[in-house]
Amino acid sequence: MDIESFKHSFDEIFLSELDRLLSRTKKRVHNTHIHGLLSHTYELAKNGKRIRPYVMALSYGAHTFDDAQEISDQLVGIELLHLFALVHDDIMDEALTRHGVASMNSFSENCYEDLPNKNLQGKYEAILLGDLIFSFAYELFSKGKGIHALPLFFELVDEVITGQMLDIRIPFEEKVTKDMIRERMLFKTARYSFARPMQIGAMLSEINSKDEALYFSLGEELGIIYQITDDIIDIYGSKKDTKKTPLQDLYNGQETLLSFYIKEHCPQSTQDTLNQLSKRSLTEDEIKIAQELFESSGALQFAKNEIKTHYENAENKISLLGEKENTWAVLLSRLANRIA
Amino acid sequence: MDIESFKHSFDEIFLSELDRLLSRTKKRVHNTHIHGLLSHTYELAKNGKRIRPYVMALSYGAHTFDDAQEISDQLVGIELLHLFALVHDDIMDEALTRHGVASMNSFSENCYEDLPNKNLQGKYEAILLGDLIFSFAYELFSKGKGIHALPLFFELVDEVITGQMLDIRIPFEEKVTKDMIRERMLFKTARYSFARPMQIGAMLSEINSKDEALYFSLGEELGIIYQITDDIIDIYGSKKDTKKTPLQDLYNGQETLLSFYIKEHCPQSTQDTLNQLSKRSLTEDEIKIAQELFESSGALQFAKNEIKTHYENAENKISLLGEKENTWAVLLSRLANRIA
Repeated sequence: MDIESFKHSFDEIFLSELDRLLSRTKKRVHNTHIHGLLSHTYELAKNGKRIRPYVMALSYGAHTFDDAQEISDQLVGIELLHLFALVHDDIMDEALTRHGVASMNSFSENCYEDLPNKNLQGKYEAILLGDLIFSFAYELFSKGKGIHALPLFFELVDEVITGQMLDIRIPFEEKVTKDMIRERMLFKTARYSFARPMQIGAMLSEINSKDEALYFSLGEELGIIYQITDDIIDIYGSKKDTKKTPLQDLYNGQETLLSFYIKEHCPQSTQDTLNQLSKRSLTEDEIKIAQELFESSGALQFAKNEIKTHYENAENKISLLGEKENTWAVLLSRLANRIA
Repeated sequence: MDIESFKHSFDEIFLSELDRLLSRTKKRVHNTHIHGLLSHTYELAKNGKRIRPYVMALSYGAHTFDDAQEISDQLVGIELLHLFALVHDDIMDEALTRHGVASMNSFSENCYEDLPNKNLQGKYEAILLGDLIFSFAYELFSKGKGIHALPLFFELVDEVITGQMLDIRIPFEEKVTKDMIRERMLFKTARYSFARPMQIGAMLSEINSKDEALYFSLGEELGIIYQITDDIIDIYGSKKDTKKTPLQDLYNGQETLLSFYIKEHCPQSTQDTLNQLSKRSLTEDEIKIAQELFESSGALQFAKNEIKTHYENAENKISLLGEKENTWAVLLSRLANRIA
C-alpha cells in the first residue's frame, strides 16, 4: 500500500469523523462566528499527506486500509493530533496559509476587518480551536484498543510539545548546542512523525507486537533521514516543489545540522558571511552565495554523509523484518530520494 | 469536610504529582530556559481554591480527602485541566499575574528583555506550556477508574473551550443574545466548575451513582448562583476582596446578566449612559454613577431575584439527597453569602 492509496481510503473516515465531532460542538453553541471557525477547521483538514497514520497502519501490518479497521480510531486520533499541532504552530509562525487555505489564525483575523488588534484576536481564537481539536484527538485515540497505547501516546504528545518549545526557543539561545538540535530533530520529527506512530502500530498489532522496539528504532532512522533531507531541501529546493522560497531556516534564524556544522568547523570569516545572510530577505545573488557557502564549507557533504549513515542503519533494521521488508524499503527509498 | 481542609490534604498529592510530571519533561530536554518555564508551572499551581476537585470529592461521597483516595488521579486530573485553562486564558486576557505570581505569558515575556516582540514570544511559550499541562490532565484523569468517566470529561472539556470561545467573541457581537450569555455562563462556569465535576464524582461512586443526574442538576444551580454572584461582586466589590478594581466587565466590554437586563428593559438614555462608561478607565465619581445605574435600573434586583430562584431550586434538589443534605446546604449558603 503506497501512501496515496492509503490517504484515499483513510480520508473518507477521517473527514467524516471530524465532521461528526465539529457538528456536535456546533449543536452546543448558538453563534454564527464560532460555527464559521468550526467549519474552517474542516477545510484545514482536507489536505495533508497523512504520514503518521500511514506508518502506523504499516507497522500494524496492514496491506490495505481495510486491514487496519480495528485501529481506525487511533489512526484518526493521531491525525487529529497533527491537525491540532499545525493550528498552534501556525500561530507561532504567523503563517497565513496552510494546505492551500487560510491558516486558522489568519481565517479568524480576516473576520475582524476594522479591529486594531485583529491579529491577536485571530491568534486567540486559533488557540481555542487548537485546544478543541487536541481534545478530539484524545477522544478518538482512547477508544477501544487505544486504551492500551495511551502511555505511548502521552509520551508522543509530551515529545512533540517539547520539540516545538525547542523550536521557538533555539533562535534566542546565545549558545546553541548539538544536544538542542538533536533533541529538536528527534522530538519534533523523528519520534513524532515516525518512531512513535510505528511503535504504537506495532504494539497494537498481534503479529508485530514482538517487534515493537525494532519498529521504534527504524522509525527514528527514517525520521532523521526525513529531517536532514528537509534541511537540505530548505537550502537548495526540491524537484517537486520549486515555488517555495529557499533558505527559510536562515531567514528565521533557525539553526540546522548544516548551519551548526559551519559554526563548529569553519573559520570566523565564513561564519560572519553566514550571519550577514541570516534573518533577512536575500537577493537572487545572495541566495546563490549562501547555497555555495553550504557546499564549499563541507556542510552539504556532511549532511549527505549523515543521511547515508542513517540510510544504512535503516536498511539493517529493515532486513530484520522478514517478509515485510519490501514495503519499508520502498518507503525508505522514497524518503531519501526527495533530494536525489 | 470544608474546602479549606480538603485543599490542605489534596494539595500534598496534587503538587507532588505535578512535580513528578514536570521533572519527567525536564529530564527529556536539556535547555535551561525551558526548565525555567517548567519550574514556573509549579509556582502557578501552588495557589487556587480547588473548587472542582472539592465538589467532585463531595459528590463521590467523601467525608475526608482519604475517602476519595480511589479517585485521586481524577481529582488531580481535573485540577490540572484547570491549570491548563488558566494558562491559556491569561494569554487572551493579557494577564500579568495569577494567584500572586507572574502569569505564564508574563513570566516568559520577562525572560526576553531586549526583544521587540517579547510579548508575543511570551504568549507562544505559554501556549505550549498550556498544551503540555492539558496533556498531563488527560494522562492523570484516564488512569484506573477514570476510563469510565472519560466521555463526561471530554464533554466538560468541549464545554469549557466553547465557553471561552463565547467569552472572547461576545464583546465583538453586534447583537448579543440571551442565548449567548446563558451558554457562556453554563459552559464556562456552571457545568465546568460544578455540574460536570459533581456528575463525574457521583458516577464514579458506588453509593451515589444512582443520583448522577441529580448531582448534575444541583451543580448547574450552584454554578449559576456562583456566576451571578460574581457578576454582582464585579460591580460592587466583595467583603473579602476589597482591593480589586470594580467594574472590570464593563471595562472589558463584557456583557453580563445585569448589563443585558439594562439593554432589554431600559430606555435608550440609560443605555447610552452605560455605553459611555464602558471600555475605559473610570474616575471614582463615574464608578459611583455606574454602580447606582445598575441599582436604579432594576438590574441588581433582577440579578438578586435570579439568585433567589436558583437558591430555591438548589434547596429542593439538596432535600432529595437524604443524609448528605447538610454538606451541600453549607456549601450553597457559602456560595450565596459572598455578596450578603
